[in-house]
Amino acid sequence: MNAPAALTHLVPEINLRNIPDALIEALKARFGANCSTALVVREQHGRDESSFQAPPPAAVVFAESTQDVADAVKLASQYDTPVIPFGVGTSLEGHLLAVQGGISIDVGRMNKVLSINPEDLTVTVQPGVTRKQLNEEVKSTGLFFPIDPGADATLGGMAATRASGTNAVRYGTMRENTLGLEVVTAGGDVIRTGTRAKKSSAGYDLTRLMVGSEGTLGVITEVTVRLYPLPEAISAAICSFPSIEAAVRTTIQVIQLGVPIARVELIDHNTVRMVNVHSKLGLREEPMLLMEFHGSPTGVKEQAELVQEIAAEHGGNAFEWATTPEERTRLWTARHNAYFAAIQSKPGCRAISTDTCVPISRLADCLLDSVKEADASGLPYFLVGHVGDGNFHFGYLLDPDKPEEREIAENLNHQLVARALSLEGTCTGEHGVGLHKMGFLVTEAGAGAVDMMRTIKRALDPKNIMNPGKIFSL
Amino acid sequence: MNAPAALTHLVPEINLRNIPDALIEALKARFGANCSTALVVREQHGRDESSFQAPPPAAVVFAESTQDVADAVKLASQYDTPVIPFGVGTSLEGHLLAVQGGISIDVGRMNKVLSINPEDLTVTVQPGVTRKQLNEEVKSTGLFFPIDPGADATLGGMAATRASGTNAVRYGTMRENTLGLEVVTAGGDVIRTGTRAKKSSAGYDLTRLMVGSEGTLGVITEVTVRLYPLPEAISAAICSFPSIEAAVRTTIQVIQLGVPIARVELIDHNTVRMVNVHSKLGLREEPMLLMEFHGSPTGVKEQAELVQEIAAEHGGNAFEWATTPEERTRLWTARHNAYFAAIQSKPGCRAISTDTCVPISRLADCLLDSVKEADASGLPYFLVGHVGDGNFHFGYLLDPDKPEEREIAENLNHQLVARALSLEGTCTGEHGVGLHKMGFLVTEAGAGAVDMMRTIKRALDPKNIMNPGKIFSL
Repeated sequence: MNAPAALTHLVPEINLRNIPDALIEALKARFGANCSTALVVREQHGRDESSFQAPPPAAVVFAESTQDVADAVKLASQYDTPVIPFGVGTSLEGHLLAVQGGISIDVGRMNKVLSINPEDLTVTVQPGVTRKQLNEEVKSTGLFFPIDPGADATLGGMAATRASGTNAVRYGTMRENTLGLEVVTAGGDVIRTGTRAKKSSAGYDLTRLMVGSEGTLGVITEVTVRLYPLPEAISAAICSFPSIEAAVRTTIQVIQLGVPIARVELIDHNTVRMVNVHSKLGLREEPMLLMEFHGSPTGVKEQAELVQEIAAEHGGNAFEWATTPEERTRLWTARHNAYFAAIQSKPGCRAISTDTCVPISRLADCLLDSVKEADASGLPYFLVGHVGDGNFHFGYLLDPDKPEEREIAENLNHQLVARALSLEGTCTGEHGVGLHKMGFLVTEAGAGAVDMMRTIKRALDPKNIMNPGKIFSL
Repeated sequence: MNAPAALTHLVPEINLRNIPDALIEALKARFGANCSTALVVREQHGRDESSFQAPPPAAVVFAESTQDVADAVKLASQYDTPVIPFGVGTSLEGHLLAVQGGISIDVGRMNKVLSINPEDLTVTVQPGVTRKQLNEEVKSTGLFFPIDPGADATLGGMAATRASGTNAVRYGTMRENTLGLEVVTAGGDVIRTGTRAKKSSAGYDLTRLMVGSEGTLGVITEVTVRLYPLPEAISAAICSFPSIEAAVRTTIQVIQLGVPIARVELIDHNTVRMVNVHSKLGLREEPMLLMEFHGSPTGVKEQAELVQEIAAEHGGNAFEWATTPEERTRLWTARHNAYFAAIQSKPGCRAISTDTCVPISRLADCLLDSVKEADASGLPYFLVGHVGDGNFHFGYLLDPDKPEEREIAENLNHQLVARALSLEGTCTGEHGVGLHKMGFLVTEAGAGAVDMMRTIKRALDPKNIMNPGKIFSL
């Protein structure tokens, strides 16, 4: 399968704008020591987990309040200068790179949980709060925040990229779980979107317009999200399969039967091996599903029995249970470290991560052919997936000094995306478009829809200063 | 409590634009008998279930395809003429009124279910398919579409108003359940939003921008929604309470405990009386909760036992069960007919329906004080609510020939909305803004957020022809 012509976007276009000295002086005057131009600080804010590189931003403002963010944006606007919001830098798609120059606004110090409303199952946080911190702070209420993209990302960053992760199959993504936002607009105004009501038909859904807008329409300065009662019972199980296909077909059937499984993650045999080495585990080196069941004790038992039955039909082994919280944490930590385990398996390598998501019935078609292609390429890779949602990630491991390896990886990615789109799926289930998928977006959404996005962007950010050069070209 | 000054928007502003004869001629030439200027047809398309009146549209185009819609919009655009999409006319907020003149595009004949994908739990329909028709057509697959606003509305209309209804407490609203759309833009172009993948981070969420945009950004010509497996077990129960407060406090506790109840509807004693007369039922004339439980047989039993226990603590009577599908249908039909039962209880009356929605912990505060005010006003009313979501509807019954009754009703509504907003709620949980809540929207969302909505509207519909005069003034 050849990738269509539109599917070519290998490296970011660097197109630096002039940053006036007067802006830097004004920022220093306003923010003092909270505005840094030290190279090490700028470099730290000019990269993310993607394999791309660009010159660092001209300055970093450490915002401590919404007012700080608003003032920084107003100054940047005055000098027509790009603004890039920064949380903890876990983006995978080059979102944080200053491809047109500009300043980084680090919201990491805005890390307060502002109000917990246990009786309404909601919490309002500043954008720099990370998901682990949030769960720590709400623990005593008996509630939890389920969205778990693996990395300990900030809520602001998760909202900006419409993140999801392992629990989304049951609890949804940031799209479903964000009730409202406070946002600093391109003009430096502060607006609020949404209320704490569970549903609303009050005007345009600005909350969901901002969720997933990747910093291109405003800077998120407050996030209100839903919480959930900690399930009465939680059980995690591992099930090994004779083939990836058997694991995938089990997953498809589980979802089609409507089992309210909380997590169902695929890890292929190669990746299990990498994880075993990295996390010192003795997992059977076969394709496996790592599952978690939430509910009442009876409900969890019912779900698990049904899934075990389906797995057995596909040749799955008996479930191995992780019943204590410690065992569960150990397993999920190993799963979340798959990326680092893979990176360490090939010293000095970088990974190009894929992120396609397809309707569940197309999952086997999409995944199995892509495994064949990856195997044939000779490039080492990891393969993990939130397969219950039809979403999975190959990580092709390449030597950054060998352009031919990057080319192989990009070709594999292009073939995978082309396949996913032909199966009515999306090029990105949860990582966002950033720099890397701009070409794919046009193929997926069509020129008309992308034009509508551009029109909105131009209207809300006429100077094109909010994280420019991401999602689409203007 | 006095309503703030912003909370005044009693009657729609009629500001008719000139409709050129040349447009009507061009429409007749293009659509032949499918373009009608007969008064009876225009009048039927110039009203909805709201209590407002405006002159009818100048013509009605019966669209039979997306191309028909696109051509009608292009002609309207050429002549700077408003376009109002029409499904079956069940809107409650004046959405369908031609307050600036224009043409109505009736999509009722676009009523085909285009593709059912049972293995992915999705279905794609034309916008004129109604929810009952949809459920009839997917019945053989063992799946169902849960969103149930009471009226047998079209899927296009439900998407346009971000509708929800009785099942939303468990299954979400059109916001959560719409995967993708086909939309004719203000320029007459056809775009697609979303894919059939369950989740995506691919660019701006145009799907959710369109959902709830009330026809002001485009005409929806195709809707892809999620389906759900019919639960293995369904039980419905009625529980009577000594007071509205007892019923409300029961609901709050049920939700706070995370019981996955499928429906929990409040009907107050007055409304039970009206329903008894209208539907010839012998329900106990006390405040009651009408509930439904979905799940496995054990799950349903567990849920029901827990809820019965909570209800008993608040003085609720023993559950009366409706176990057969016929009994369930009879009960839900009675619930859905509450509106008509109320209208018939006061011959010749019209209802002004409220639609506030508040965080569940504020439900008692919001509802009980409003009951007191309504009782004190002397105006008859009905009271029903999707209380599990914190959403409820008063319907104040007024004689349209008595302006003083309308004033009393509007004042009650204003007081209620002011209270809901002060409790972090919304003026509209599911009916939309339309003509009636434009003032409320500014109070709720703030001038900055409404300005952002206006900016988007102006950018996407520069001639202001898409259902103008709704949601906000331009």
